[in-house]
Amino acid sequence: MPARPGPSDRHPPDRHPPDRHPPDRHPPDRLRLADLARQAGVSEATVSRVLNDRPGVSPDTRHAVLTALDILGYERPERLRKRSAGLVGLIVPELENPIFPLFAQLIEAALTDYGYTPVLCSRPLGGVTEDEYVEMLTDRSVAGIIFVSGHHADTTTDPDRYRKLVDRPLPIVLVNGFMPEVPAPFVSCDDRAAGQLATAHLVALGHRRIGLVSGPDRYVPVQRKLAGYQAACAAYGLTEQVQLSQLFGVEGGHAAAARLLERGVTGIVCGSDLMALGAIRAARAAGLTVPGDVSVVGYDDSPLIAFTDPPLTTVRQPVRAMANATVQALVDGINGGSGPHSEYVFGPELVVRGSTGPVTAGR
Amino acid sequence: MPARPGPSDRHPPDRHPPDRHPPDRHPPDRLRLADLARQAGVSEATVSRVLNDRPGVSPDTRHAVLTALDILGYERPERLRKRSAGLVGLIVPELENPIFPLFAQLIEAALTDYGYTPVLCSRPLGGVTEDEYVEMLTDRSVAGIIFVSGHHADTTTDPDRYRKLVDRPLPIVLVNGFMPEVPAPFVSCDDRAAGQLATAHLVALGHRRIGLVSGPDRYVPVQRKLAGYQAACAAYGLTEQVQLSQLFGVEGGHAAAARLLERGVTGIVCGSDLMALGAIRAARAAGLTVPGDVSVVGYDDSPLIAFTDPPLTTVRQPVRAMANATVQALVDGINGGSGPHSEYVFGPELVVRGSTGPVTAGR
Repeated sequence: MPARPGPSDRHPPDRHPPDRHPPDRHPPDRLRLADLARQAGVSEATVSRVLNDRPGVSPDTRHAVLTALDILGYERPERLRKRSAGLVGLIVPELENPIFPLFAQLIEAALTDYGYTPVLCSRPLGGVTEDEYVEMLTDRSVAGIIFVSGHHADTTTDPDRYRKLVDRPLPIVLVNGFMPEVPAPFVSCDDRAAGQLATAHLVALGHRRIGLVSGPDRYVPVQRKLAGYQAACAAYGLTEQVQLSQLFGVEGGHAAAARLLERGVTGIVCGSDLMALGAIRAARAAGLTVPGDVSVVGYDDSPLIAFTDPPLTTVRQPVRAMANATVQALVDGINGGSGPHSEYVFGPELVVRGSTGPVTAGR
Repeated sequence: MPARPGPSDRHPPDRHPPDRHPPDRHPPDRLRLADLARQAGVSEATVSRVLNDRPGVSPDTRHAVLTALDILGYERPERLRKRSAGLVGLIVPELENPIFPLFAQLIEAALTDYGYTPVLCSRPLGGVTEDEYVEMLTDRSVAGIIFVSGHHADTTTDPDRYRKLVDRPLPIVLVNGFMPEVPAPFVSCDDRAAGQLATAHLVALGHRRIGLVSGPDRYVPVQRKLAGYQAACAAYGLTEQVQLSQLFGVEGGHAAAARLLERGVTGIVCGSDLMALGAIRAARAAGLTVPGDVSVVGYDDSPLIAFTDPPLTTVRQPVRAMANATVQALVDGINGGSGPHSEYVFGPELVVRGSTGPVTAGR
């Protein structure tokens, strides 16, 4: 390692030749076994048995050691690799909203538990469309396709694209959307319950002027959250105040919340965590504090959301349970099962953090 | 929409039959054209020309309209779809650290600009390994493979896997790692400069007891950040205090930072934003405030990091520029170019937010 500061060139792109000699490449050693054993919570002898693919190890223990290997960043020995049971396509709309990487990560983990190799397709703006990905995946003979928040969530799109896949037949599972015309398993979070849950939480804190911000109402999850919010407004005798933005995301939430704040709302129910972060920005831009003057509830909950300022109160999608159900339904379909093709609806839960508080006299 | 609250069943999984009739499916209308025109910043006539694939529209304008279509969630008309120039594999280690979805999103966008279809492979714990993904991708005749923070970042792994690909020949580009034995283009953020930049920022705020937390030092980026930190310590006459964790991520950062705080550091340079969030947690757990008692600098910067409590001061990887250079290098390789196979090093930039402040007398 150099003892003095090197050049700190800040003008990319900059080429410079390799300035390091290759370090020693060393084989697995005792330290590695000990680390793996500690990480996996098993003995070093057990780690050794797994790494050498010896019998007498339970599947759970084997998985724990392989996971420890991954967590600590070690390569898996050649003999522990296995042939894939087949490819499964997983199409998500984008990766900027952190809920989509979370769904992808957990669905992929469940697929690999069943021996399938996930192929993740996310749709960059202006780039590959959902239908193009489907064509690419079927050309490659995937065993099935999972759609997360795809066209099936958009009530203005044509359900035929999915019916054709079902007719091939190709097993598909559709997450967070619903088309009654498509005879395939759907897995959803209960958006209606989410809308009610968030509104009821604000009512319990004394709020009466509660608005909803969400995306375009041609999307099934938006329609359902709206229905839940409206049902709660009716039940509690509140006046509905709805602002739907053309855009999901921080900017959409900011713009929609700003209009609600002008009308004097003290509580805002948001269609996504990103919109909630935008609503908090809008409140601050209007000289208001969160949760002092305005309470904000998000929707989704992904790992970083607990670290926001203030930590966001939100309605959590049970992503792990949904991911497992999705993969179970797909594998059932691949194995020839054809259970009732209805919708599996998972209950969300309210996670109360720091962005909601009692209504104050000020507003 | 129902007027009263529906059941808010919280016990998944729960099946219930479709409770909605399909909504009207309506064709593109005036509103849609107007929305698209506003979003793309062009006239409705121009939107119409693009949607009908008429001539007389510049590529930039066409891309702006297609992007507006995607942003607003509309389907792309059949006639605007095009055959892919080929598949390109993109392998990232995981999706939990938000820097990896960000790299994936921007590399995919650049690939689709060149007409390639990205196939994203992320490695769930205990699941598919990097080598298994490579085998799957080469079986599917990809045009090239991009590796982000793969085994090439780990100095204990075998470079032969990459040399074999280069020998096939298969164009590959390796991001954020370096193996001098592999004759392929590498694209990196200047980790040494990052380590120096973060340390110098804390020194400028009056800190003298500055520690570094990062992951295992068998990784090239860790070695380089460490070298930058050490160089800065030497230049400013500081005593080095290094804590490397077996784990990247919040928990690893928390544990390593806790040990540094026991030794009285007032400033902590972190190897990733997630580790920095862990360091902030560790400070609070020790009854200290950030930045009142302790200043913390992260590394990476992804969109949500600006929303943390406090907003994180961090060293930003120029992900967009790196993504573009990566794809450019890959496409050059696919097109038969064989430029000098050296490392393209991009300068990071310090983004000062709220987690760093002047050293206080208290500590």
